[in-house]
Order: sequence, then C-alpha cells, then structure tokens
Amino acid sequence: MAKIVFRDPWDQHTIIEHVVTDMLFSQRSEFQQVDVFETAQFGTVLALGGVVNCSEVDEMGYHEMLVHVPLLAHPNPRRVLIIGGGDGGTMREVCKHDCVEEAVQVEIDEVVVDVCKKYLPETAVGYEHPKCNLIIGDGLDYVEKATDGSFDVILVDSTDPVDAADVLFTENFYEQCHRVLADDGILVPQSDSMFNSSKNVERVVGQLGAIFGGNVHLYRTLVPTYPFSMWNFTFASKGPHPYENLDESRASELDPQLRYYTSDLHRAAFVLPKWMTERVASWSRA
Amino acid sequence: MAKIVFRDPWDQHTIIEHVVTDMLFSQRSEFQQVDVFETAQFGTVLALGGVVNCSEVDEMGYHEMLVHVPLLAHPNPRRVLIIGGGDGGTMREVCKHDCVEEAVQVEIDEVVVDVCKKYLPETAVGYEHPKCNLIIGDGLDYVEKATDGSFDVILVDSTDPVDAADVLFTENFYEQCHRVLADDGILVPQSDSMFNSSKNVERVVGQLGAIFGGNVHLYRTLVPTYPFSMWNFTFASKGPHPYENLDESRASELDPQLRYYTSDLHRAAFVLPKWMTERVASWSRA
Repeated sequence: MAKIVFRDPWDQHTIIEHVVTDMLFSQRSEFQQVDVFETAQFGTVLALGGVVNCSEVDEMGYHEMLVHVPLLAHPNPRRVLIIGGGDGGTMREVCKHDCVEEAVQVEIDEVVVDVCKKYLPETAVGYEHPKCNLIIGDGLDYVEKATDGSFDVILVDSTDPVDAADVLFTENFYEQCHRVLADDGILVPQSDSMFNSSKNVERVVGQLGAIFGGNVHLYRTLVPTYPFSMWNFTFASKGPHPYENLDESRASELDPQLRYYTSDLHRAAFVLPKWMTERVASWSRA
Repeated sequence: MAKIVFRDPWDQHTIIEHVVTDMLFSQRSEFQQVDVFETAQFGTVLALGGVVNCSEVDEMGYHEMLVHVPLLAHPNPRRVLIIGGGDGGTMREVCKHDCVEEAVQVEIDEVVVDVCKKYLPETAVGYEHPKCNLIIGDGLDYVEKATDGSFDVILVDSTDPVDAADVLFTENFYEQCHRVLADDGILVPQSDSMFNSSKNVERVVGQLGAIFGGNVHLYRTLVPTYPFSMWNFTFASKGPHPYENLDESRASELDPQLRYYTSDLHRAAFVLPKWMTERVASWSRA
C-alpha cells in the first residue's frame, strides 16, 4: 500500500510531513479545504486550508492557554464571545468556568463544526453544554452589530490571516471588539508565532497596543503540530493585569479538569526569551 | 536547477524538510555523518548523523540555557567540564563568566570542531578563548580518569543517545560525573524532548534522580530546528537549588552579551505544562 503523507508548509522554506494512517475526510467547504486524518503521533488531526488546525493529542496546550489565562485574570467573566473556534475546544474550556453564564460562539464554517462533532468528539463536546450559544455566521458582522459593553471576554480563535480569517486581524475588527467589551473586558486573539511569522505578531500587537492604550502583553504556549511548536497569544485588556490578580481559588477549582494549564504556567507564559521581549518592545515604541 | 532539501526525521511518523540554498560540507567522519548547509530561514546549519545539531539562527536558545542556568545557580563555578559540544557554542557561553578559571571540553569528533571553525565561526569562537582547554577524545574515558571533586559544573552537550553518544546516557557515566563533581557541583545533560522521545527524558531523569538523591529538576528551552522545538535539560545538583539562589548581580553583568537568557526566563524554564510535571513526578516515584 502506498504511504500517505500530509505536508504542512511551516514557512516558505520548511515543510513538516506527517505520516497519515487513515484519511477520514477531505472536502472543500464554501470557505476552505477541510481535511481530517489519523496519525500515530498526534491522533486525529483537523487541517484547514492545508495546514494543521487542531490535533487530538496537543490541542489542550492551545485551548487551555487561550481560555484560562484571560478568564482567570478577569475578576468575574460572565459573558464570553468566541470568534471562530470551529473545533469546539475553546467552548469546552470556557464552559468549565462556573461564573460564565453564556458563551456565544460565531463560526463561519458549519462544515468544520460538523466534522469535529463526528471525528473530534472530545473537542466538540463543548457544543453540548447548556451555556453554549453557537451561531453559524460572520464574526466581523456579529461584532459590528453587538451592543456596546456586552461581553467580558472576547477570544479570537481563528485560522491565520489568510482568506476568510484576514478581516479578523484588522484594526476595524479589533476596534469593534474594544467597543463590545465591558469596562474591565479582555480580548485575546490567537497571534501566530514569533518563529515563523513575526510580521503577523507585530501586526496584532501593534494594532491592539494603539486601541487598548498599551495594555497589551504577548504570551506563549506549546503546540507541537503548529509551526515550530511555540505559539503566541496577545492579551489586550481594558483593566485587569494579565496575572497580578490571577484568581488562585478559581484556578484550584478548575485544576482537576485541566491537563496543561496551571497558575504557575499562566505567569511563566508571559516570560519571553530576551530577543522576543526586545522585539515586542520595539514594536510598541514604533 | 533541482531543489535540494534536507529531511530530518523528528520521530518515526514526522519528518521536517528544510530547503537547502547551499550545500557546504557533507562527509562521514570516523564517528558520524557530518553535513553543513545553508538555509534561508535558519542560516548555516550543522547536521550530525542526519539530524540537525545546530543552526546559526536559533543556537542561542540551546547554548545560553544549557550554560547560564547551572553557572548562575552555582555560587562560584571556577572549573567547568563540557562533554561533547563540538560546535563551540557551549564553550563560548561558559567563557563569558568571569569567575570561570578553566573550561575543559572533551569532544570525540575533530571533524565537527574543524567544520564549525570554518562554517560556524560565531559558535566556534569559543575555542579562541584563553580559558578554553579543548581535548579531542572520549568523554566517558576522560571522566573515568578525572580526579574526585575536580569540577564545579559538568555540561553534557552530546548528540542524542545513538551510536557514540549512547554511553553518555548511562548510569555508569552519570555516576562518574557525580564523583568528579565538587561538593556543591551541578551536572546538566541535554535531555532530548518530552514531545518526541519522552523515554529518553525518563531514562535521564530516572538515573540522575537515583544518583543525586532526588535533587533533579527538568527545565526547557526553545530551539525551532529541534524536534517540536521544545527541548529539555536536566539540572542535577549536589547542593545548589536551580533558581532560589540565582546570582542576579552576575546575571546583570552577563546580560549585554546575551540574546536569549534572562533571570526571569531562568525561573520560568522550570515551570512545565501540567502533563509534563505529572509525568516527571511519576518517574521519580517509580
């Protein structure tokens, strides 16, 4: 039998090749190429637009750090908005917080939601929670129409800034998010990686720095199936510090349900290698 | 012109492929295949035994964290032994410490030293320092003959446990290192990655835990050209804690010469994702 491989371009000069043990789904949706395949190393893998989006084995490093950092830095997050997040893992983590009353998710591509319910049930389990309000639609459009100050935390769990996701990396979108956030609200977009596309990180940090008056902090997590494994998030806040008032008692309550996040790791995630810190500082000065 | 690629197997199921812009050297030495090539993303790259060993662009994440963590945790490191480290980057970092009087390096493969002097002069610069005492020879043999308590810090900067380097991952080698260390001595071997070969990490942590009476701590760094980028070191100590008595004043003096290490990052490097902490704890209990 021929060996099947999935080749994921990490940058212009580097490709990672996963041996595929079973091809489960491969179809172009209205918005993007959607592939699901099985691997020996990472279990079931979802790829969108030809690049790995989520794997069964390492998704917790992404979802737990995207969600619990802002939700435990915020004193009382009751209404959370997720833009994107089709695999359901972000919703799953948000719904673990007792204080959250409603989690609205706006995902543009219903095909992604459907294949994840079928092939990645452990991430898609988020959709079954009573707090979950899933809307299939356009994230920018939803935010533009949303009421001022109506959300405590907004999480942007999008693909990288190509095709449909590009509008989610614009000043206009971030300004709308800022308006829709309550007075002590926090916005965290996934922000690509300093290793393979520091221009994307610079774009996010620069735009949010201007909109949130400098209260913007880059942090990082580990996702082995993502380009060079080290992934960045940007913590942009109208009030709360990223970790100084971290709610340790809520963190302890969550702990039995977590595999990646700890409150020590929350703080450590903001400590970047020297060259990254210097580069981020140079963007803020610019 | 045909496209040349270097394919580095990260594990049994995953290969990373770098586009090679110029092949500079490719030869089998007495001990291993030695390749040096140019890439657009990582500059000049040294590969040993068919896997990337060192790249111009990201080597500082490896060398600075291997060296400065134990040397700044130790109160007064005067004699340092490096086993392996053919590219010279570890020697370069050790010689930055004013308190170091002599740095002995035992590298088995002279071809590696020679090609690095030619193609990676920024790492091989370490060999030019007056404190450097480079011995071409067998690391295990050197340690077996060394005097009790004659080194303050031993750094094992070897390739992974295959071929000539396998003896550097054995109980016998580590016991000899323990004997050769002074009373407050520290041993740090490079310890592979929890992502692609946790069995190797387990082997190192388990053996050192038994020999150093449990005073063993795993830490991590980021090296994008290494399997899944997250790389582990094991800090095994006869006395000093890995960070509680970190010498901040010596760290500040070094700072202008560093690109990766900071004292905050030193502490953060010991904070592991929850699943890693739990797995390391399970090995210690076993």
